Amino acid sequence: MSTTASAFTPSVSAQRADGQAIGYLMQQGIENADCLSLAAGFVDPETLPTALVDKTASRLLSDSETGKLALQYGTTGGSDRVRAVFRDYLARLEGDEDRVHNVPLDQIMLTTGSQQLLALLTEAIFNEGDICLVAAPTYFVYLGVLDGVGAQVIPVKTDDNGMCPDALDAELRRIDELGQLHKVKLVYVVSYHDNPAGISVSNDRRPKLLEVTKRWSQDHPIYLLEDAAYRELHYDGEELPSIWSFDTGYDSGDQQHVVLSQTFSKSFSPGLRVGLSVLPPELVKPISDLKGNQDFGSGHLSQNIVAEVLRTGEYWDHLAGLRTSYRAKRDAMVAAAEEFFSGIDGVTWRTPAGGLYVWMSLPEHIPTGFDSPLFARATEVDKVMYVPGELCYPSGWEDRPRHQMRLSYGVLAAAGIREGMRRLASAVRAVIDSK
Amino acid sequence: MSTTASAFTPSVSAQRADGQAIGYLMQQGIENADCLSLAAGFVDPETLPTALVDKTASRLLSDSETGKLALQYGTTGGSDRVRAVFRDYLARLEGDEDRVHNVPLDQIMLTTGSQQLLALLTEAIFNEGDICLVAAPTYFVYLGVLDGVGAQVIPVKTDDNGMCPDALDAELRRIDELGQLHKVKLVYVVSYHDNPAGISVSNDRRPKLLEVTKRWSQDHPIYLLEDAAYRELHYDGEELPSIWSFDTGYDSGDQQHVVLSQTFSKSFSPGLRVGLSVLPPELVKPISDLKGNQDFGSGHLSQNIVAEVLRTGEYWDHLAGLRTSYRAKRDAMVAAAEEFFSGIDGVTWRTPAGGLYVWMSLPEHIPTGFDSPLFARATEVDKVMYVPGELCYPSGWEDRPRHQMRLSYGVLAAAGIREGMRRLASAVRAVIDSK
Repeated sequence: MSTTASAFTPSVSAQRADGQAIGYLMQQGIENADCLSLAAGFVDPETLPTALVDKTASRLLSDSETGKLALQYGTTGGSDRVRAVFRDYLARLEGDEDRVHNVPLDQIMLTTGSQQLLALLTEAIFNEGDICLVAAPTYFVYLGVLDGVGAQVIPVKTDDNGMCPDALDAELRRIDELGQLHKVKLVYVVSYHDNPAGISVSNDRRPKLLEVTKRWSQDHPIYLLEDAAYRELHYDGEELPSIWSFDTGYDSGDQQHVVLSQTFSKSFSPGLRVGLSVLPPELVKPISDLKGNQDFGSGHLSQNIVAEVLRTGEYWDHLAGLRTSYRAKRDAMVAAAEEFFSGIDGVTWRTPAGGLYVWMSLPEHIPTGFDSPLFARATEVDKVMYVPGELCYPSGWEDRPRHQMRLSYGVLAAAGIREGMRRLASAVRAVIDSK
Repeated sequence: MSTTASAFTPSVSAQRADGQAIGYLMQQGIENADCLSLAAGFVDPETLPTALVDKTASRLLSDSETGKLALQYGTTGGSDRVRAVFRDYLARLEGDEDRVHNVPLDQIMLTTGSQQLLALLTEAIFNEGDICLVAAPTYFVYLGVLDGVGAQVIPVKTDDNGMCPDALDAELRRIDELGQLHKVKLVYVVSYHDNPAGISVSNDRRPKLLEVTKRWSQDHPIYLLEDAAYRELHYDGEELPSIWSFDTGYDSGDQQHVVLSQTFSKSFSPGLRVGLSVLPPELVKPISDLKGNQDFGSGHLSQNIVAEVLRTGEYWDHLAGLRTSYRAKRDAMVAAAEEFFSGIDGVTWRTPAGGLYVWMSLPEHIPTGFDSPLFARATEVDKVMYVPGELCYPSGWEDRPRHQMRLSYGVLAAAGIREGMRRLASAVRAVIDSK
């Protein structure tokens, strides 16, 4: 029987998920497989904890009782036994055992990486046309999630100390004056060593961003999604308290505004897909309902493995080694930037205190996008790839900067980082010289 | 600072996910923790492959190369290397190596259990008000997923040989006459030993259901979602070919209509959360886009573990043992039904050839729902729990049967199964006698 294929039309939801930056980027990665990649946000394979996971999985699985628990279904948000271990971990991280132990276990949710939490939260609170305020630049994959629910995304002025509280306040006032405050559901901030710019929200701004968010929560709660994915990849200087720690709601019974999202994908292993979040009480049920429909719960063996290395403390030893390794690679990239770019007028970059990214700005007349001369030259001639900075601003923002690049030192070793930077500088010089 | 909690309103999507049967059921399970459970669809902890997973994880992780691959990110649908192993497995299962090896790897998608595939497919093809035709009874969790996208769910007459092709045809004709054919997106069938009734679609009906689905695919494709979750839990009689195997589209380039969904949650370990599906080509991108936004890919270590036991063949040895164990428990439940229920007028049950469930019908005037006298008596006095059959029909169907029960022999050992059935018979007798 032969039939002609009839036309398939994806749902509105699937159409919105089409054309996201991450898709283009992965496609570019495939098409430019011969390039050195300063683009991939992957972690360094050399520091993946294979031996530790091996030992831990063996300990769990060789005991019949713990083995069966790990291989059976958990509950949607993770078993209470495992969540209690994650709460202990969070208490240590926050340095405030008593307050953190007041968080009921059901407000702690384990997801498939933190990405699933970002997606679930967004689906749980946004209807089409609702508003999210984001730092500019911000994590481009989350911009795709917001596009996926048909949200309006409004950039908020962001500098080297993170999102500016005064600018957030001004945007909210402007939105209120337009009669649209009821549509504002979320403020999104990557609070530590952010993706893409390596910026942390400064200590003094942390409570201020929360205060502004709370003050404009008038007829309905506006939430602040604190994406702390890079919190533990900290190399220099002071370790900052989370924005969540300033949320008096979380242990006082008041309205809680901060959703804290963390992940073990950067600090331990992305292949395990373990994300950890703390939810305000009223979000537990809607997010659990959605997750129940989507998967009944994330991988239980993986959650048990991470919980076990947290319980034994071996996690912290691993983390210390990881920091040393990434610090050296961060230094290698900054040194290479100095070596190869300091002679090029109008090129600037930031030295991040943590995370995986160096954010570089070119002269404003040098665009970096996928269809730019620079991207073509870099990938076709010099054989190096980066993430165009314009992906990290709301796609509907006409005036978004187009002359920046996100450069990652996550995957490559020091020599590869230096060579990648050398190639990139060659491409930048060539494009500037051709103008 | 003290603030009064302002009102939070979940999104439309989250509101739709509220009030699903699975939520009530889990709540009942928690509230009735002192009951013997014939309700839980969990697998038997005694047959979980702890030693095999231990050995396999060690082999993968003690080798630096395979260990790093397993702990790194994969791709959204699973790495090609792993997907190739899953395709080999499918070829063996289908007994048709040549045809199955024509399936491009990107049409094979790995998800967080098969549940995520059901949810992703539904999100990718349904807009609000679109129509799904389902067997009656059917898997109640999927009914929740359909409610979650605002679908219209239409039950199709189903007997001991599965969904009736003539009834499917008649429903589609009726819908066409109402001018609504353009809204029909999917026919949903649990093709082997189904949840809840233990029914398999008979051999002769398999191509017929597909033929009807294709014939009514006029201006757009209607898909047939073949949920083969219980395919491998087969205890007696002939092993049937999948409905997918009759879909000439899958290896000829014609329009492909069947989405084949399988899982390793029942046959191996639910805690690993590994689901396997084969998608028609045009569904690959929308489903990958949605999954990319939701989680970038499921647990990679778990996928590698399952792939490795498939590659070594140890999976099949495990499965043989599992079948022997469940067959004995099936026999224990059927024997207990005979022992305790055969003296009660109007009670009937099916002996399933596989799966985890016995479907029992009471006299029509004895409802079994959560608010029925029987459920109260069973949980409060006799201390036994079951799944009310009415959950397994579309919630909007006024005339749905309300006198049936899904009884699972998955978790309990033989003695517990017998005791559970004894208690349930006691409750049924008490309620009948009180009428």
